[in-house]
Amino acid sequence: MTVLILTCEADVTADLVVVHLNTSEVPVVRLDPADLIGDVALSGEYVHGVFRGHLAAGGRLVSINGLRSIWVRRPGTPAARAPVPSGWLTEEASQALYGMLRGSEARWMNHPDAARRARHKPWQLRLAQRCGLPVPATLITTFPQAALEFSERYPDLVVKPVSGAHPQDPPRAVPTSRVAPGTDFAAVAFGPTLLQRRVAKRADIRLTVVGDRMFAARKPTTADTDQVDVRFAPSDSPWCPADVPPRVAAAVRIYLREAELSYGAFDFAEDADGTWWFLECNQSGQFGFVEVDTGQPIARSIADWLAQPGPEQHTQVNGTNTAVS
Amino acid sequence: MTVLILTCEADVTADLVVVHLNTSEVPVVRLDPADLIGDVALSGEYVHGVFRGHLAAGGRLVSINGLRSIWVRRPGTPAARAPVPSGWLTEEASQALYGMLRGSEARWMNHPDAARRARHKPWQLRLAQRCGLPVPATLITTFPQAALEFSERYPDLVVKPVSGAHPQDPPRAVPTSRVAPGTDFAAVAFGPTLLQRRVAKRADIRLTVVGDRMFAARKPTTADTDQVDVRFAPSDSPWCPADVPPRVAAAVRIYLREAELSYGAFDFAEDADGTWWFLECNQSGQFGFVEVDTGQPIARSIADWLAQPGPEQHTQVNGTNTAVS
Repeated sequence: MTVLILTCEADVTADLVVVHLNTSEVPVVRLDPADLIGDVALSGEYVHGVFRGHLAAGGRLVSINGLRSIWVRRPGTPAARAPVPSGWLTEEASQALYGMLRGSEARWMNHPDAARRARHKPWQLRLAQRCGLPVPATLITTFPQAALEFSERYPDLVVKPVSGAHPQDPPRAVPTSRVAPGTDFAAVAFGPTLLQRRVAKRADIRLTVVGDRMFAARKPTTADTDQVDVRFAPSDSPWCPADVPPRVAAAVRIYLREAELSYGAFDFAEDADGTWWFLECNQSGQFGFVEVDTGQPIARSIADWLAQPGPEQHTQVNGTNTAVS
Repeated sequence: MTVLILTCEADVTADLVVVHLNTSEVPVVRLDPADLIGDVALSGEYVHGVFRGHLAAGGRLVSINGLRSIWVRRPGTPAARAPVPSGWLTEEASQALYGMLRGSEARWMNHPDAARRARHKPWQLRLAQRCGLPVPATLITTFPQAALEFSERYPDLVVKPVSGAHPQDPPRAVPTSRVAPGTDFAAVAFGPTLLQRRVAKRADIRLTVVGDRMFAARKPTTADTDQVDVRFAPSDSPWCPADVPPRVAAAVRIYLREAELSYGAFDFAEDADGTWWFLECNQSGQFGFVEVDTGQPIARSIADWLAQPGPEQHTQVNGTNTAVS
């Protein structure tokens, strides 16, 4: 059975995982949905209650029924490189490709539905709370008065976007910033604003989880307390491996199970007491920089997860399931 | 507890449901996400492991924690009518609104994830097969040779889009059409094509399902056998109520359970033997025209479903759930 990797061509992180899969002699097909209607082709047939589907890429033909796992890494927009691209063609190609793959029995890292849901920051915060992870007091609001009252209860705040990166081309990360005392919150009425109690952190934590395996990395905070966003901080010390507190490990396992994610990159802020405060979980978070600094075998773990045998195939879901493989 | 309806202003079908809810004295808030940052405002606070959120619309304030159900009917694009609309503002408003609502315990008709998945036609066909519904032989392909071979096995074919309506403004429905004998399939290479064995039908069936309640309607086919798409057929006879064959009813229940849908509008083609062939299930299919012709109480059933008590609220998901309401 084959591992399918959906990603763009210039993805060196995927290259690392492919090397491990090749070493294990696990069949791999890698393709970019942007190449549909061209280098990538598909066909699926629904006849007599049975589905048989195939993908062709780079001169290779792979059975959709024979996929053991699908890694949705950095796929391009379907049919974006077609001879005559259009919104309609992209919609048709997307529905055809993902519609067929969704009907397969393969294991996903991560399933598109789970990935989409997991991008919602307010949902993340609520799930983290319900799993028992410490979450800094947070307000998301379009009410200036609510923002003002929150700032009186929590005078030391940061502001960050509700969603992810700004959708310019190329997308731009919006840094988390401190809120100055006496800020006028009138502009909150013009767009939802996320305010969060600033954690006086002594370290940033990146916890990468692959299936059941956890890789925690820790980077002590720099002296500049105005710089709260590690992505924009000068990198004067490397990430070092860290142990995961058992309570955090248990909560994170519940989080990923509830979120139906097989991969997640958690960001925590470690305070002076050693408490890890949940900031976010990125279901497609990069891991290359952690692996380079810490030597943790993350790419290899992803390859191992993808290489696990696929599930048995069932033809019926009406209570009399029949295994056919 | 309140029913939340997300839809545009000019939605007379939603009006019908609101009338029933008002008659039952169930609190209802109706809003269009397009009015966010203006007539609609939101605020949510995550403090000490608890979430408290509110929506304001039309001068009313409703607690997100106090929602019993959410009907996603025809919502506009979030913040589309903001004073200064932008892609970034839409993304922020969408994440804030749906991110908070996704964290609520309310019952959905239909949940956004289930709705999104249910739009994939190839996935629908596979699920229908697995539920034991008869599915006409279907091919989705970008291989001209595969299309040619399929047309030799099934000489009487129709062609239809893989996805739904064409995304022009306003969106345009693409009719299902018959494939002429001797068709040249070379163009299949330029876009995924869905070919399906034409069912020689004697009637069209629309089966509307609301929770556990089923409303089947039947319309005999006109004599013009070239017109295969009921949406474009002259309406010379009304829809009449029909009984649902027990095997179909059982399969449809499984379909909706697996699809995690509480509402679905199924289209079947009834052949000369009385077999109902599955064509598609539209998770947001219109029902007003059926109710007008048949008098079936579909709007009332939706109101009843929405009015059912909400679930108990749980604060933890780590094995020691505590009901707090």
